Amino acid sequence: MPFLCTYFGGQAFSSNARKPGKQYAHRFYSALPLRPPPILAEGQSNIIQLSIIALNKHLHPIFDRLIQREDRERRLLQHSKVLWLTGLSGSGKSTIAQHLERRLYNEGYFPQALDGDNIRTGINSNVDFSDEGRRENIRRIAEVSRLYLNSGIITINSFISPTKAIREMARGIIGEEDFIEIFVNAPLEVCEARDVKGLYKKARAGEIKGFTGIDAPYEPPENPALEVRTDEMSLQDSVRIIFEFIEPIIKYRRA
Amino acid sequence: MPFLCTYFGGQAFSSNARKPGKQYAHRFYSALPLRPPPILAEGQSNIIQLSIIALNKHLHPIFDRLIQREDRERRLLQHSKVLWLTGLSGSGKSTIAQHLERRLYNEGYFPQALDGDNIRTGINSNVDFSDEGRRENIRRIAEVSRLYLNSGIITINSFISPTKAIREMARGIIGEEDFIEIFVNAPLEVCEARDVKGLYKKARAGEIKGFTGIDAPYEPPENPALEVRTDEMSLQDSVRIIFEFIEPIIKYRRA
Repeated sequence: MPFLCTYFGGQAFSSNARKPGKQYAHRFYSALPLRPPPILAEGQSNIIQLSIIALNKHLHPIFDRLIQREDRERRLLQHSKVLWLTGLSGSGKSTIAQHLERRLYNEGYFPQALDGDNIRTGINSNVDFSDEGRRENIRRIAEVSRLYLNSGIITINSFISPTKAIREMARGIIGEEDFIEIFVNAPLEVCEARDVKGLYKKARAGEIKGFTGIDAPYEPPENPALEVRTDEMSLQDSVRIIFEFIEPIIKYRRA
Repeated sequence: MPFLCTYFGGQAFSSNARKPGKQYAHRFYSALPLRPPPILAEGQSNIIQLSIIALNKHLHPIFDRLIQREDRERRLLQHSKVLWLTGLSGSGKSTIAQHLERRLYNEGYFPQALDGDNIRTGINSNVDFSDEGRRENIRRIAEVSRLYLNSGIITINSFISPTKAIREMARGIIGEEDFIEIFVNAPLEVCEARDVKGLYKKARAGEIKGFTGIDAPYEPPENPALEVRTDEMSLQDSVRIIFEFIEPIIKYRRA
């Protein structure tokens, strides 16, 4: 696939070069002593591999300071934000988050969904469901999100986070301008009728205490950045609406 | 800068095209309806921006499953690991971590250093210095590292983590094959003489209790993956030795 080499060596990285040709490939590679070219195989992914490897030495090397969020954002070509999906159990938060994560990834972004599956079993495995435990649960999630934010990564958080106070705490930790509250809204009746995990049935039977919407309150956001009514639109439409809302925000803008 | 367009449109993305030329730029862009081309400015970084944008649609889109660690590693062109730097206060862990992070970043990797600055003030702000608190401190750090690991990111952790038990807990959470223990070793006398933060002085004066090396034990790793003697070599050499050790491990290998 000599045309690859022609490009990288002759045109892109040696704009003074007069003749594109295979020799420039060597010149290009010789500028990358620490990461030799990968073994080529068939298909487009080689082009992509070469593209990324070509970045290594040329994308704003830093010599005299710590790596900042801005450096990471520039590397990932995105602006990091925390998308905070709040809503009742069964409203569709996690499903939307999974589809949104995939959509963002496929569009070239680098997102990370955080939800019960990777949080409750790990960092929050020792947090209970008392009021204090729930608060600590959300506090730690917000702190993890803040770490990711400073790593330049877009997190998509799906947690009921039922009260205004608890969401304001998260907003305070993450920072006003990086916290994007998205209300995933479906009426309790709809969520209870779905009852994907069978939790509403258990809550009604008294087997679960303090279940949001049954015997614990859910306080809807008064002024969310975005609201999606999952009882009125399809999953695909919900994901599309969120994507179209956030894309102008996360899209990389040259500083 | 028409040559850019020639490359992307004519050669790389339309291998059937007969004539390279500006028209192929439009063809290329029209394949990316959701991320229009950025405004061009002077310099190499445009080429790089276009390279990355070109990846968006072409790098292994996923349609029917969750994004996995392997997908993220492929996107970042690296294998994620947790580099666990253990050693006395003043041995040089954090300084090495900062320089190693920068080196990795400049070589095209995507690392994240975790240390007291971003952990103790955030997720672990409510953990004390009791035995139980120290254990919980390390547990949470290990869990955060595991999240990053699954995000495809290389973490560089600088925490004294003084006992074998505490490091084995971290190893258990992170997983044997992803936990790379690096012993940053300098004799207590050297660390105490450096006393960058003035902590040894306070510990000797009894103002700090349970300080590792003074009135709390440090158990050196028996079989670390790597040991660097920071009293015997320069910072630059320590960083280079670690980099050269880990590069074959983190370097992306085609699956």
